[in-house]
Amino acid sequence: MKLEVAFSPVGLHPDDVRGRTVFVIDILRATTAMCAALHHGAKALIPVASTEEALRLAQTIGSDDLLLAGEKNCVRIPGFALGNSPLEMTEGAVRGKTIVVTTTNGTKALLAAQGARAVYLACAGNLSLAGERARELLEQDGDILILCAGREGAFGLEDAYCAGRLAQAALGGRRARRALNDAAVASLDLVRRYGDRWERPLARSGAGRELIRLGFKADVLDAARLDAYPVLPHFHERRVTLASQLVS
Amino acid sequence: MKLEVAFSPVGLHPDDVRGRTVFVIDILRATTAMCAALHHGAKALIPVASTEEALRLAQTIGSDDLLLAGEKNCVRIPGFALGNSPLEMTEGAVRGKTIVVTTTNGTKALLAAQGARAVYLACAGNLSLAGERARELLEQDGDILILCAGREGAFGLEDAYCAGRLAQAALGGRRARRALNDAAVASLDLVRRYGDRWERPLARSGAGRELIRLGFKADVLDAARLDAYPVLPHFHERRVTLASQLVS
Repeated sequence: MKLEVAFSPVGLHPDDVRGRTVFVIDILRATTAMCAALHHGAKALIPVASTEEALRLAQTIGSDDLLLAGEKNCVRIPGFALGNSPLEMTEGAVRGKTIVVTTTNGTKALLAAQGARAVYLACAGNLSLAGERARELLEQDGDILILCAGREGAFGLEDAYCAGRLAQAALGGRRARRALNDAAVASLDLVRRYGDRWERPLARSGAGRELIRLGFKADVLDAARLDAYPVLPHFHERRVTLASQLVS
Repeated sequence: MKLEVAFSPVGLHPDDVRGRTVFVIDILRATTAMCAALHHGAKALIPVASTEEALRLAQTIGSDDLLLAGEKNCVRIPGFALGNSPLEMTEGAVRGKTIVVTTTNGTKALLAAQGARAVYLACAGNLSLAGERARELLEQDGDILILCAGREGAFGLEDAYCAGRLAQAALGGRRARRALNDAAVASLDLVRRYGDRWERPLARSGAGRELIRLGFKADVLDAARLDAYPVLPHFHERRVTLASQLVS
């Protein structure tokens, strides 16, 4: 059995993900916002690496049902309909829409996971569902990788804590020390340290402090709401959709 | 004040180290072995990136007082006088010698720190001295970076724990949450988790388990000995020497 955590997509090689199941975490705020959007009826999200690519793609698709969303340094990109806040992803704003999203770190992590057999998105908002799927897959395949977006290529406390919560759920009480890489051990150590209070690691993280400083405290609190957006998103053929849609 | 930790040199840009003081940690085993060598009278160590470079440099220098040391995947490189074990760095073997060293992760971290204003080496073996210097520098300049070698570009539990111990020493009891980046917070969390018993995080880490599996358990135990090699090495002009030699 192998349960690995990567604290950042930097340094990850295509071979590290090939054929595996990857859970991507960017709790502040990309994966939380994507869960919120799908929970409120968005059709799909298309993560792209830059503002330019988002504009180009929007022109190519040219549909009325398309929205642009994204942030640069936490702030909504000028001209875009939405930022990267889960609180903006209301039913009124997103139902039936396809959303082209560009974010600083989350998109990079999703793109780094391309080539995996399956890519799921996780955050506090969908932890129980993601944890259930992670446990099933760990039992079935004996292998999962939890990939944190981190922050500008470096370690992010908020994602590492969330990785620990997901690893804990995937293990389901089993002791499997040999199955864990060092980052998985440390992320479980963080869960032991912070307990089940999501607010503490989120507000203590650099990303959380920066969001609070910029007036997005409500986003940090929203991202800390366990199972607030109970959906399981899947990243497949460059789109994030509900994973169950693939089965139906 | 700024006290930052980087869990790996991967993704570190020259701008991240320029003008700063960096403490490099590769406790299993490069920085421990280097402290052992200098403590036992070696003149200098020259870290290089590959076996080929080590051989080329040895030919160029062509001195009888030169030794080759290094490992690849934990095992001594064939034809080299020494491996990467602190226990090999006895006074009989190293006194008066200059040692060209190539190691998998430690050398990469040292080379990534080139361009810093000053680069020190740290491990359990010299923690008190390194911690004292780190505290002085943090008071004087208000800034240090602790750079972990990690393992193949990824997070290593043993180095992260050691980084936490060094950060704790540098802070000297001060609370300075705003000064810490997320990796520094997490490394201090690991110290809280494992207490002062070096053996636990070292033996639990992937690097430690691999060394034990290959028959190097004595090295892991040696690397866990607090202040066993009380020297403060400095990396300057491509050489690792005793820092005090620069002053004298």
